[in-house]
Amino acid sequence: MPNHSLVSSLQQRRQHLAQIFDAPVILWSGTAPSRNFPANTFPFRASSHFLYFAGVPLENAAIRLEGGKLELFMDEESPESALWHGEIPKRDEIAQTIGADAAYPLAELDSRAANAATVAVQDIKTNQQQSEILNRPVAPAHAAKGIDLELAKAIISLRLTHDAEAIAELRKAAAVSVEAHRAGMAATPTAKTEAEIRAAMESEILAHDMSCAYSSIVTVHGEVLHNNQYHHPLQPGDLLLADVGAETAMGWASDLTRTWAVTGKFSPTQRDLYEVVLAAHDACIEKMRPGVEYRDIHLLAASVIAQGLVDLGILQGQVSDLVERDAHALFFPHGVGHLVGLDVHDMEDLGDLAGYEAGRKRSDRFGLGFLRLNRPLQPSMLVTIEPGFYQVPAILKDPQTRSKYQDVVNWERLDQFSDVRGIRIEDDVLVTEEGTQVLTADLPTQADEIEQQF
Amino acid sequence: MPNHSLVSSLQQRRQHLAQIFDAPVILWSGTAPSRNFPANTFPFRASSHFLYFAGVPLENAAIRLEGGKLELFMDEESPESALWHGEIPKRDEIAQTIGADAAYPLAELDSRAANAATVAVQDIKTNQQQSEILNRPVAPAHAAKGIDLELAKAIISLRLTHDAEAIAELRKAAAVSVEAHRAGMAATPTAKTEAEIRAAMESEILAHDMSCAYSSIVTVHGEVLHNNQYHHPLQPGDLLLADVGAETAMGWASDLTRTWAVTGKFSPTQRDLYEVVLAAHDACIEKMRPGVEYRDIHLLAASVIAQGLVDLGILQGQVSDLVERDAHALFFPHGVGHLVGLDVHDMEDLGDLAGYEAGRKRSDRFGLGFLRLNRPLQPSMLVTIEPGFYQVPAILKDPQTRSKYQDVVNWERLDQFSDVRGIRIEDDVLVTEEGTQVLTADLPTQADEIEQQF
Repeated sequence: MPNHSLVSSLQQRRQHLAQIFDAPVILWSGTAPSRNFPANTFPFRASSHFLYFAGVPLENAAIRLEGGKLELFMDEESPESALWHGEIPKRDEIAQTIGADAAYPLAELDSRAANAATVAVQDIKTNQQQSEILNRPVAPAHAAKGIDLELAKAIISLRLTHDAEAIAELRKAAAVSVEAHRAGMAATPTAKTEAEIRAAMESEILAHDMSCAYSSIVTVHGEVLHNNQYHHPLQPGDLLLADVGAETAMGWASDLTRTWAVTGKFSPTQRDLYEVVLAAHDACIEKMRPGVEYRDIHLLAASVIAQGLVDLGILQGQVSDLVERDAHALFFPHGVGHLVGLDVHDMEDLGDLAGYEAGRKRSDRFGLGFLRLNRPLQPSMLVTIEPGFYQVPAILKDPQTRSKYQDVVNWERLDQFSDVRGIRIEDDVLVTEEGTQVLTADLPTQADEIEQQF
Repeated sequence: MPNHSLVSSLQQRRQHLAQIFDAPVILWSGTAPSRNFPANTFPFRASSHFLYFAGVPLENAAIRLEGGKLELFMDEESPESALWHGEIPKRDEIAQTIGADAAYPLAELDSRAANAATVAVQDIKTNQQQSEILNRPVAPAHAAKGIDLELAKAIISLRLTHDAEAIAELRKAAAVSVEAHRAGMAATPTAKTEAEIRAAMESEILAHDMSCAYSSIVTVHGEVLHNNQYHHPLQPGDLLLADVGAETAMGWASDLTRTWAVTGKFSPTQRDLYEVVLAAHDACIEKMRPGVEYRDIHLLAASVIAQGLVDLGILQGQVSDLVERDAHALFFPHGVGHLVGLDVHDMEDLGDLAGYEAGRKRSDRFGLGFLRLNRPLQPSMLVTIEPGFYQVPAILKDPQTRSKYQDVVNWERLDQFSDVRGIRIEDDVLVTEEGTQVLTADLPTQADEIEQQF
């Protein structure tokens, strides 16, 4: 059953590609990697570049794009497979669903592979097939070369901004992520461990038949930026940082963080720092519009955080000097956000090719080097805005760092904020012609409103 | 902090290995495969053979076993990594936790690799390292050769039966799986889709900080044996088949299936067939004890099901003839169960080497060929008992099959049972000296008791 809106979006995407890229393109979907034995796999996740043009997550399939036409390559299931996996739609039905112009068994791909460009998939097994079928080495996506590099640039120019079909999916993912966070807050009063809150949040995502776009962070140790452990007990006085986002069946992601008090009520020190992070969050979103440099949004967050910490007596000095010296990064060591799309860090498989405008490179500065996006904003770009405040022992206990910043940090004053390990407030922000639209705006950010959830 | 009971179990396991295997052994843990870009990975799952001897899931680590001694090889985290992943225990602390005799950086492995045997891991990246470091091709685990095959056989002889440490973990996994099924039943009256019940079940597993041992099956289409879709709405009259099992943090699995009515109450036809499956389940467990052939348990299930279907008028003829002709397999096409341990199909990475006693091979018979275990039972073996009844269109609509079995199936009578697509009742059964102990026995199997959950 063709979905006309999907089919027409997919057709537009490949016509756009044809306008800017001449050679034939073959994109593979990949296979599910084994967990502990071949029949026990991780859930299948199709390559995002495949999904962008094919629309549906077909395992072990490939598409060939040329002149705006799509050929689908996949094998039909065997009769034995029907016993285990049910009646799967036939190749021709799938071809119709996605508006393919032709459909063939995988074995035919070999004869249609001449001079084709591709993007290396993450799945190593399929990656080896890419080299075999194209009869040349296919470098990893982040190190693409020659025709593959040109293709990557062309795909980036399409995927950087989202069409209506994509935005509808991104909205669905955002809406379910909001529900997940509400469920996490609702579960907090009776939860005894991080794991119980994580369970309540992911359960909401699963109940909508979606998956998690990334490994959830649900922790009272928010200072560990990529914390994927959930065993800590919840203690009164703890803040809980929850970074949990849904992904739709078609692969579109969302990325959402809130921080709340385990008791439901922030302590005065927690609230003070929460307000600093929130001020940065709000200032960034307020400032965003087409043409604005995302790097400037990051530096704005840095300035607002530095100013807030000066106001609280934690930092001392001129805000502009503090930011120039990266003093903000003692407490806000990551970038203010990144692209969101089919990947939660969209197109990060291509290294910085998508995140960084041509000719720009990562900064060596501690306060800028972790910035994942450095481009002027464009209408229909989706980015996160996620300022934070963290007390990371690896940074703040480092003798060299302490000595370097001894004149700007009031360590005694900082000690009074020891009940704040990590705070982050993150929303998914769509750039529009007029300014922005926050896709995750239904979830409160104000401290009062968050407390009212309890 | 060493866990003395774990350390002593791990020491015993490697001493047992040393008694039956002479050469040095190197086992790798593997790495987490990428999902859609390198930093977005699936959850890390260590190789089960590594876990068996090392006890804890260390990513990108290796152990070398010789003469009962264990050397641990892993790299310490970099200071930058501490920012993202927190303070991870040092190598020497981990070595102490698992009772290692020595600990080195990974780079040292090269110089300690001479003449070592190994088991190929599932993770392809690590598998390539295995060949490089051992300086020889390492065939996939299911096709192990030479010294690696000898090692696989030695490990199987250990892992076939479980020590007290393992049984304690298997009990924990079973207990949480039971809770997950209770949660699934509790969620059913208000759930509108399969996805909502799946969410309630997996949430219970996550809340205990465990993971799913395999992709959950939660479906009103139980006739699709490996159904991993959850989008169907729940309709009155549907049976729901839920095959969901937890895995502990140390990797020990459980595997548990129940089938219940979406309304909470079986129809008379559903109950009739449920009773047939339950009779097979109970008869198998009743018959199990050390020395009994698991194949005979499978054939017993086949006979009880055939007898039940004769009693219901669905099959006609002598039960022994029906089973010999594989008529039971029209409705019960899979094996009655398999080994359970660190893998939910334990050691299936080694093909049939673990499941099948030396010299035995899979049968060509439709009614026996899917049997995953064909050995005499031994004390401390954990196996599933999971008879089922399914109406699989790929089997029952096949003209050849219909003609072959036209004299034994009463198709009109079968039509009266059209509200049964799939029923399975599965428990984890530990073989003891005296007979059996059902680790998942806290979850009811009787139709009346299941109805009382609603």
